[in-house]
Amino acid sequence: MTKGRRTRSAILETALAEASTFGLAGISIGGLARKLELSKSGLFAHFGSKESLQLQILATARDRFVEGVVAPALRQPRGEPRIRALFERWLDWSRASFLPGGCPFIATANELDDVPGPLRDMLVDLQRDWLGTLSTAARIAVEEGHLAAALDVDQFAYDFYSLILAYHHFHRLLEDPMTEARCRRAFELLLERARV
Amino acid sequence: MTKGRRTRSAILETALAEASTFGLAGISIGGLARKLELSKSGLFAHFGSKESLQLQILATARDRFVEGVVAPALRQPRGEPRIRALFERWLDWSRASFLPGGCPFIATANELDDVPGPLRDMLVDLQRDWLGTLSTAARIAVEEGHLAAALDVDQFAYDFYSLILAYHHFHRLLEDPMTEARCRRAFELLLERARV
Repeated sequence: MTKGRRTRSAILETALAEASTFGLAGISIGGLARKLELSKSGLFAHFGSKESLQLQILATARDRFVEGVVAPALRQPRGEPRIRALFERWLDWSRASFLPGGCPFIATANELDDVPGPLRDMLVDLQRDWLGTLSTAARIAVEEGHLAAALDVDQFAYDFYSLILAYHHFHRLLEDPMTEARCRRAFELLLERARV
Repeated sequence: MTKGRRTRSAILETALAEASTFGLAGISIGGLARKLELSKSGLFAHFGSKESLQLQILATARDRFVEGVVAPALRQPRGEPRIRALFERWLDWSRASFLPGGCPFIATANELDDVPGPLRDMLVDLQRDWLGTLSTAARIAVEEGHLAAALDVDQFAYDFYSLILAYHHFHRLLEDPMTEARCRRAFELLLERARV
């Protein structure tokens, strides 16, 4: 990796941690430059604009998510094992040390939902991809005979993601110690219901 | 109502709409003063500090929520009708014209979860009250024989709120036209499961 690429990668790592905690609006090129002890003009040269930096942060989060959640699950056997892997890997993701504020997609959803533009479009595309991954995993589990033939796989994806959204809310805001147990229980019930 | 109280109430109504859309951090006394064509010092006299204004916004949201969601449900018969009323009223709440950005508690959750202080404390208390309302409604439904005696009412409250969090995410960010149907289906399944 060239020095330029290393610097760019270090900037994005710090920026992703900040976005996870404070959202994308709070990200500033000046603030990052101070934190990383780089010149503001040097940092600006890497990204050009605040919006371009914000888009790169989302792209970095997407790459990490694919690498840490989606790809390892795809290496699991088709069907229920893969669905379980998506669930477990997502829990790990939301508690990863490089995401001190939790899942950056959920952390920025309420910030972006009323702000039309490329950032919102990108987040929506990423969320649709994720729901597509969940629907596909459910469809494969139906093919494998692990889940019922009559299963509405899009409803399954919706219900799966509901559990995750709730986990994030209860764990991060309410700090409810029962959160993981409740989320796991709800997940087992979801699978149970999807089998019949 | 005195003129002072009317002005204060108009300020809070505008501020609540803004917080619903852009979060609490984006609220500024100067910005509100411009929008309401009031002097900044006049507006400052009503609230004293930005944090005090933000706390008053949450208190206003709480009052509206109790008035629009909790109180009407408490006027419904004990048991399942009351649980259904909480669900329907919450859907109405999240689409109310005075909340252009949706539920202000969900809209500010990710903003406040990493920021310790009185705002976060108040939001957490409000969310705990709401979960308590849901648990109590479930407990009453058990007493009335509408839901199973063995029901874990706190898990029921958790699952109920999961549906709502997902509704907010899918409806507001993804603008998925299937959201309401999926949410209603998940709610009926939740009730069905809670009966056995």
